[in-house]
Amino acid sequence: MKKGMTWLDQPSGWVDAKGFEAAAASCDIRNKQNDRLDLALFVSSAPCTAAGVFTLNAVKAAPVRQCQAALASGKAIHAIVANSGNANACTGARGEQDAASMQAATAKALNVDLSSVLVCSTGRIGEFLPMAKIEQGIPTAATELDGKDSSGHAAADAILTSDTRRKVAALEVSVGSGSYRISAVAKGAGMIQPNMATMLAFVSTDAGLDTELLQSCLRKAVDQSFNAITVDGDMSTNDTVLLLANGASGVRIDAADSAAVAAFQEALNAICYDLAEKIVGDGEKITKVVELRILGAADDGDAEKVARAIGNSLLVKSSWYGEDPNWGRLLDAAGYAGARLEESKLKLHYRAAAGEEAVPVFVDGLGLAERKPDWKAIVRRKRFIIEMDLGIGQGAFRLLASDLTEGYVHFNKSE
Amino acid sequence: MKKGMTWLDQPSGWVDAKGFEAAAASCDIRNKQNDRLDLALFVSSAPCTAAGVFTLNAVKAAPVRQCQAALASGKAIHAIVANSGNANACTGARGEQDAASMQAATAKALNVDLSSVLVCSTGRIGEFLPMAKIEQGIPTAATELDGKDSSGHAAADAILTSDTRRKVAALEVSVGSGSYRISAVAKGAGMIQPNMATMLAFVSTDAGLDTELLQSCLRKAVDQSFNAITVDGDMSTNDTVLLLANGASGVRIDAADSAAVAAFQEALNAICYDLAEKIVGDGEKITKVVELRILGAADDGDAEKVARAIGNSLLVKSSWYGEDPNWGRLLDAAGYAGARLEESKLKLHYRAAAGEEAVPVFVDGLGLAERKPDWKAIVRRKRFIIEMDLGIGQGAFRLLASDLTEGYVHFNKSE
Repeated sequence: MKKGMTWLDQPSGWVDAKGFEAAAASCDIRNKQNDRLDLALFVSSAPCTAAGVFTLNAVKAAPVRQCQAALASGKAIHAIVANSGNANACTGARGEQDAASMQAATAKALNVDLSSVLVCSTGRIGEFLPMAKIEQGIPTAATELDGKDSSGHAAADAILTSDTRRKVAALEVSVGSGSYRISAVAKGAGMIQPNMATMLAFVSTDAGLDTELLQSCLRKAVDQSFNAITVDGDMSTNDTVLLLANGASGVRIDAADSAAVAAFQEALNAICYDLAEKIVGDGEKITKVVELRILGAADDGDAEKVARAIGNSLLVKSSWYGEDPNWGRLLDAAGYAGARLEESKLKLHYRAAAGEEAVPVFVDGLGLAERKPDWKAIVRRKRFIIEMDLGIGQGAFRLLASDLTEGYVHFNKSE
Repeated sequence: MKKGMTWLDQPSGWVDAKGFEAAAASCDIRNKQNDRLDLALFVSSAPCTAAGVFTLNAVKAAPVRQCQAALASGKAIHAIVANSGNANACTGARGEQDAASMQAATAKALNVDLSSVLVCSTGRIGEFLPMAKIEQGIPTAATELDGKDSSGHAAADAILTSDTRRKVAALEVSVGSGSYRISAVAKGAGMIQPNMATMLAFVSTDAGLDTELLQSCLRKAVDQSFNAITVDGDMSTNDTVLLLANGASGVRIDAADSAAVAAFQEALNAICYDLAEKIVGDGEKITKVVELRILGAADDGDAEKVARAIGNSLLVKSSWYGEDPNWGRLLDAAGYAGARLEESKLKLHYRAAAGEEAVPVFVDGLGLAERKPDWKAIVRRKRFIIEMDLGIGQGAFRLLASDLTEGYVHFNKSE
C-alpha cells in the first residue's frame, strides 16, 4: 500500500465517504414472516458520476438491464435501491415493470429524478417480486437515511443472502490538496444459496471524477479482483458492481493528472481486491482459499485459462478440501485448459504464504516426491499459494479459488 | 436398431467377435498385496487394421503417445496390453521407456512384431510403473490366452478402477453374404478415483475394413457417444478408444459400398453409445443420469456449449442430486455458456422418458409454476430427459450427464 493510503479500522461500508447515506428496511421478500433486513438504499444527496460493470450472462436479470440503461444515459446518479431474497431474473415483461416500479418508488421517496436511481436485486431466480411489500419498504427506509455507521451496517446486511458475514471496506487517500475516501460494500460469491444470484458490490467515493475516467478505473479494478475469483464457476444472472463519485471531499481527479489517477486506481484496486478476497473466504461451505498464480504462459489469456481450469476442477477442489497435495490433478486440469503448454517445461511450486519458500512439486518433467511432507504441511493451511510456471512466455494470471466440500453439495441440493 | 442387427444377450466383451482372444493377470500394481486382476491382453491372432481416438489433453500419458505413434505407422496390429492402477502419466523419459518395455514384453510373449502392439494404462498419475511385476505378468497372461467368455470377462475386469461393474457389449450384424460381430469392453467415466485416469474402450470386429474407413467410422461413433458424456467435466491424460478389425468373419466392408458402411456405422454407434451410457450410469457415486437435449441453437457448436455448461454446472448437478426441478439454474448456465441465445425465445421442457409428455417448464419468457408437481415427479426418476430449445436455428447436441453428490466429494477428497 502506498504512502498516504490508510485502511479504515472499522469501516461501515458505503457511508465512510463524505456525503453518502444509507438505510435499510425489512420487507419479508422471502415470505418467511421474519424481520430480516432485505431492502437497502445507498444514497448521495449530491449528484454523482457513476460507473458499472455487469454480468456477461446472456440471461440478464431485469435490474441489470435497468442499471445498464440508466448509466448509458450519462445523467447524474443519486441512489441505488437493492433487495435480497429475489433476483427478479427470468421474469419477462413483468420483471421489467417491477424494476421500473422500484426505480419510480425510490425517486419519489427521495425526491430525485427517475433517471438518477439504479436498481439491483439478488436472490431466487424465476419468481415475481412482492411489489406491494417493496413499495411500502422504500419510503420507510427513505425516512431513516443518514450517514451513520449503524445505517451503513444495516444496508450492508440487507443485501446479504447466504453470506455468513458483512463485507465492507474503506480507504482514505491523502493528497496535496486534502484527502478523499473510497468505501464499499459487497455480498457473497457464487450462486451460493438455492437459486440465489449472486455478487453485488457498491463503491462510493467523495473524490470527483468524470464518468469516462470512473468507468475506466472501475473496469481495471474489477478485472483484477471480482473477475479473478471463483467459488463454483457459476456466473450469475445478476452480478453487478457500481461506483458512485460525488466530489464532496473537494478533491478532483482529472484524467490528465496521471499520478492522481494512478493513486486513485491503486486505492480502488485495493478496495475491490479486499472485498473479492472476503467474498471467496465466505464462499458457500468452503474451508480453504487457494491463490493460484499462473506464470510463464504464452499470454495472459492462456494463463487465465489454466487458472480457471484448475480453480474450477471438481477433482482439484475436492483434493484441497481433503488437504491432499494432489499435483497430478493440477497438471491434468492445466492440460485440458486449452492453453499452449509442454509438460517438460512446466514447473509447479507450493508456497505457504507470500515470502515463504516456494517448495518444488513438479520440475523438469518429474514430481519431487521427497518433498511430500512439505507439500502436506502447506495444503493443511486455511490459505496457501500454488504457483505454476508454464515456462513458455510472459503471460500471467492470479485467481483466488475455494475448495469444494460435501457441505456445498448438501446445501445446494434443493431449495 | 435396424433389421439384421442383434444385441448379444450375454456379451463377454472383446472375444465375441471371431478370432479375438483375451487374458488377464494379477500384478499387484497398486502394491496392496492382493490378487486383483490389473493387467490384460486383448489379442487377434490374425493381423488387424486399427483406429484410435485419444484424449485432447496437452498433458498426455506415455502410453497414449505410444499408441498414436504405432497407429501412425499404418502397420498391422495384433494386440493391446493394458494395465490399471497406474496411469504412467507425468513420468517423463522413464515413463516413455516403461511403455516401450510393455510393448516389447508383449511382442515377445506373443511372438509378433513390436509395432503390432498397442499399450494402455489407467490409474494413478505421477508414479512410475512397477515394471518387474508387469514384465512377469505379461508372459503369464499370454499363456492363458483364449477366446472363451471367462477370459473376456477377466480382461474386462482387469482394466476397471473405481468402476463398480464390468462394461461389455456386443452386436451381430447380418448381411447378404453372412454376418459379422462388433464387441467391446470399456472402463469408467470421469477421473473417478483418486488420481485415477480414466476412460478406456477397446472394440473388436471380425468384419474387414481399411484403416482409413475404420478411423472415419470410429471418429463418428466416438463423437456421438464417449464425447457426449460428462461425470465431473475433468478430461483425463489417458482417455483412449481403440478399434481393431481382423476380417475373420469373411465379411469385407468397402468404402464404396455406402449401404454396408452405413450399417457398420450404425452398429458401431450403437455399441459405443451403449458403453458410454454404462460409463455415465456407473459414474463416481452418482445417483442419476440426465439426458440433455439442446435444440434450436444457431449451430451444433452452440448447442454443445449450452449442453456442457448445464451438464457441468455444480449448482445444476447438485439440484439433480436433490431431486429439485430447479430450472433457474439451467437458464443461468445456458446464459453463460457463450452461445447465442435470447431468453424470450428459449423453451424448456422436462420429459420422464422418450415418448412421454414433454412437460413445459419455461415458455415465452416465463416459468409455468402450475406444472411444478409434474416437474417434481420427473426429476425424482433415476433417468430423465431435459429439452432446451433455443428457438434460433437448427443446431442440436445431446449430452448424457450425471448428478453431483456429497459422496463424490468425499470419495475424491484424498488419495
